[in-house]
Amino acid sequence: MSKSVFYHAGCPVCVSAEQDIISLIGDEKVEIVHLGEQKNRISDAEAQGVKSVPALLTPNGHVLHINFGASLADVKG
Amino acid sequence: MSKSVFYHAGCPVCVSAEQDIISLIGDEKVEIVHLGEQKNRISDAEAQGVKSVPALLTPNGHVLHINFGASLADVKG
Repeated sequence: MSKSVFYHAGCPVCVSAEQDIISLIGDEKVEIVHLGEQKNRISDAEAQGVKSVPALLTPNGHVLHINFGASLADVKG
Repeated sequence: MSKSVFYHAGCPVCVSAEQDIISLIGDEKVEIVHLGEQKNRISDAEAQGVKSVPALLTPNGHVLHINFGASLADVKG
């Protein structure tokens, strides 16, 4: 895995962080996953250690939780 | 301002996040500031909106609080 994955759920905090992350890392190096629209990815995100969004899964498998938008429980709604 | 600033305080969470951020952004694009050792930078960090460490101040002035290591109040000790 050489790309990072940015998980978000469409909240204002998420969108702002998304723009910052893309600007910092480069959009070719990060896959954006909207968990509110792609609920089939939630279990995978949880398995990787994502507890809230927005979060960035790095290529080495670390999860960086950025600011706090919503817990995954809220996203599952 | 074209560089990001990564504020940390030497805690394990901070050091891990530091390595991830440097790996993602590139060490030439981020200044690392250890607020535990450079306490004269704390007031500046607060003025920029940093509330806890580790945190990344982006070139456009946004603050991304990453995971949670310590509040600035704890760093001031």
